Amino acid sequence: MTFARMWSDLAPVGRAGDGGYRRFAWTQEDHVLREWFAGEADARGLSLVTDRAGNQWAWWGDPDATPGVVTGSHLDSVPGGGAFDGPLGVVSAFAALDTLRARGFEPGRPLGIASFVDEEGARFGVACAGSRLLTGALDADRARGLRDADGVTMADALSTAGRDPAGLAADPEALRRVASFVELHVEQGRGLVHTGDPVGVGRMIWPHGRWRVELHGEANHAGTTPLADRRDPMLDLASFIAHVRAAALDAGALATVGKLRVDPNGVNAIPSRVTAWLDVRAESEAAVQAVLSALQDYAPARESWTPVTVLDADLADTVVDALGGAPRLSTGAGHDAGILAAAGVPTAMLFVRNPSGISHAPAEDADEADCLAGVDALATTLERLLA
Amino acid sequence: MTFARMWSDLAPVGRAGDGGYRRFAWTQEDHVLREWFAGEADARGLSLVTDRAGNQWAWWGDPDATPGVVTGSHLDSVPGGGAFDGPLGVVSAFAALDTLRARGFEPGRPLGIASFVDEEGARFGVACAGSRLLTGALDADRARGLRDADGVTMADALSTAGRDPAGLAADPEALRRVASFVELHVEQGRGLVHTGDPVGVGRMIWPHGRWRVELHGEANHAGTTPLADRRDPMLDLASFIAHVRAAALDAGALATVGKLRVDPNGVNAIPSRVTAWLDVRAESEAAVQAVLSALQDYAPARESWTPVTVLDADLADTVVDALGGAPRLSTGAGHDAGILAAAGVPTAMLFVRNPSGISHAPAEDADEADCLAGVDALATTLERLLA
Repeated sequence: MTFARMWSDLAPVGRAGDGGYRRFAWTQEDHVLREWFAGEADARGLSLVTDRAGNQWAWWGDPDATPGVVTGSHLDSVPGGGAFDGPLGVVSAFAALDTLRARGFEPGRPLGIASFVDEEGARFGVACAGSRLLTGALDADRARGLRDADGVTMADALSTAGRDPAGLAADPEALRRVASFVELHVEQGRGLVHTGDPVGVGRMIWPHGRWRVELHGEANHAGTTPLADRRDPMLDLASFIAHVRAAALDAGALATVGKLRVDPNGVNAIPSRVTAWLDVRAESEAAVQAVLSALQDYAPARESWTPVTVLDADLADTVVDALGGAPRLSTGAGHDAGILAAAGVPTAMLFVRNPSGISHAPAEDADEADCLAGVDALATTLERLLA
Repeated sequence: MTFARMWSDLAPVGRAGDGGYRRFAWTQEDHVLREWFAGEADARGLSLVTDRAGNQWAWWGDPDATPGVVTGSHLDSVPGGGAFDGPLGVVSAFAALDTLRARGFEPGRPLGIASFVDEEGARFGVACAGSRLLTGALDADRARGLRDADGVTMADALSTAGRDPAGLAADPEALRRVASFVELHVEQGRGLVHTGDPVGVGRMIWPHGRWRVELHGEANHAGTTPLADRRDPMLDLASFIAHVRAAALDAGALATVGKLRVDPNGVNAIPSRVTAWLDVRAESEAAVQAVLSALQDYAPARESWTPVTVLDADLADTVVDALGGAPRLSTGAGHDAGILAAAGVPTAMLFVRNPSGISHAPAEDADEADCLAGVDALATTLERLLA
């Protein structure tokens, strides 16, 4: 069973003691994952291409002759992430190709398997960096200058990883090979638990964005500065966090403060500055804007923005039909599928049931039977699209 | 002018672009500072001793024959600290010794200059670690196991710095050499600005302590988890910060949340845990306890505690008399002087005026004329005590 073998190959890469994963772009862990992808492609006789944005493609057939159907996802993770977000789509892609071959299927057009780099944006702060670079939604100059928490630029990280940062660019040739894209992903909620289905089909991706808020104070000694003389940004942080939740409740949106940076972060020092990152999503762009408007006193600086993505309705109908019926789901999570859809590629998503609904955490999970149902659904979908 | 030369020698060590210092115990910067201390001792023909706790002593005369008068402070800093907190006392000690020699003074007992390691506790979380180890107030086994932000133990840090961690111990022999201790320090408030004096004499050190609060939540995806289903510890942090300030105002105490740790600290992840550190100080132990009682729902775990320290009244009178009068000050900041006083060493403190009152930040400052007045006051004090 190739699915189980691939899954156990990936299991130890970047796993911490608590079961959480840390697989950041252009790190040693990322290198191991890229080598794994290349090895799987090679074992199946697929041709491996790395595009100018750093994404990996494994092709069955020649996509320069005829654009192909592509499936895949990403292998990187958030800090302390789960095993499924990303890797399930890549492993299922290889397993679905194996299924098609085992069925003796002869594709009428090329099949590609993609692994997009840096989908989570955990290291450099821009989500879907690989697919955005590919389509030109993220400028290569801006990307090269992005810095990680240690101050390392993406350009330096690329050099360390053995890639020439000057080669980083949009890649319209690579994009032209993609006639349509299907991304399989673990569900990040309990929609399929409620419907009782192992697999669902995507409808739309909520608009979502990230903002940074800088709260400035005056550094001073915690033991000698009277309360009345303090300019303590920690108090502003407290009110900011409370305002974020209130604004989200008012707007019917999701808003989260998940990341902080305190300078200088000393026990006995009043901070000079607290930086807070804000993630806002909602079913409508108006609801996201309502949250931002309520927080305008904090002067949030936008770091990324993805408008609402309505996935291709005809393609979704075809997938549901191929599967003999399946529930339709919307998601608040961003995906490379959304970036490709925004670039004009007909795109569909398949979701696999997640018992707890938890994602971006070690408790993220899917039953093996549901994963195999996902592989089967993906194979059936590809069979229809490749005919 | 040896003061200015020593000051400029130290100025670049561990200084960041914004002028803040980062001089943590047993790092490369600390090594440079220790070498500097050894060089200054050597240049004056003083005998250099490193005690079992890692503190450095430079002796003029033989303290094993007759216990001596010791002056000094520390060279380490908080993150983003100022140039004066610590180094002013060590530089002034060497400069005062030079002044005594220039005056042709022949001491009636040995004079020691001390540099205590790890006073700020910025790396391993325990303030005055060097002096506490010396007196036995900090157990060596506990110290060896303390971890820095990267998980490095003090034992490993000692090994990396070329010291045998097994040798870390209380050092009663080193302590017996100290007949009395005088620490000169930049004022961390504006008391001397108000009285209009360049130098003041210490009265007492407020009781103070540090506590750690763990706020637990459930890690999950920021884009897909309904607000009602979240257990977001960031909201608990907001209420904790507000409660800390309210409790401090009620009790007439100082309480500060200056340090945070967010796990996993991802923009699009609801945190699984937020850890907050709390610093509380007040003129009375009852006021500190009142703050802690108001926060008991957060189960603060004590990391360190220093009771009120009343500095030696007779010694303070002698110092004020030698100076021909000087204002008396209390301080909310902890000092190695307090640790030695608690161990029974007659101890005095001299404070040098700080125009802004700011400390633990790059704006920490003292006029050169006031620094030289401090050296002169220290020399005059030592002359009296060494007669």
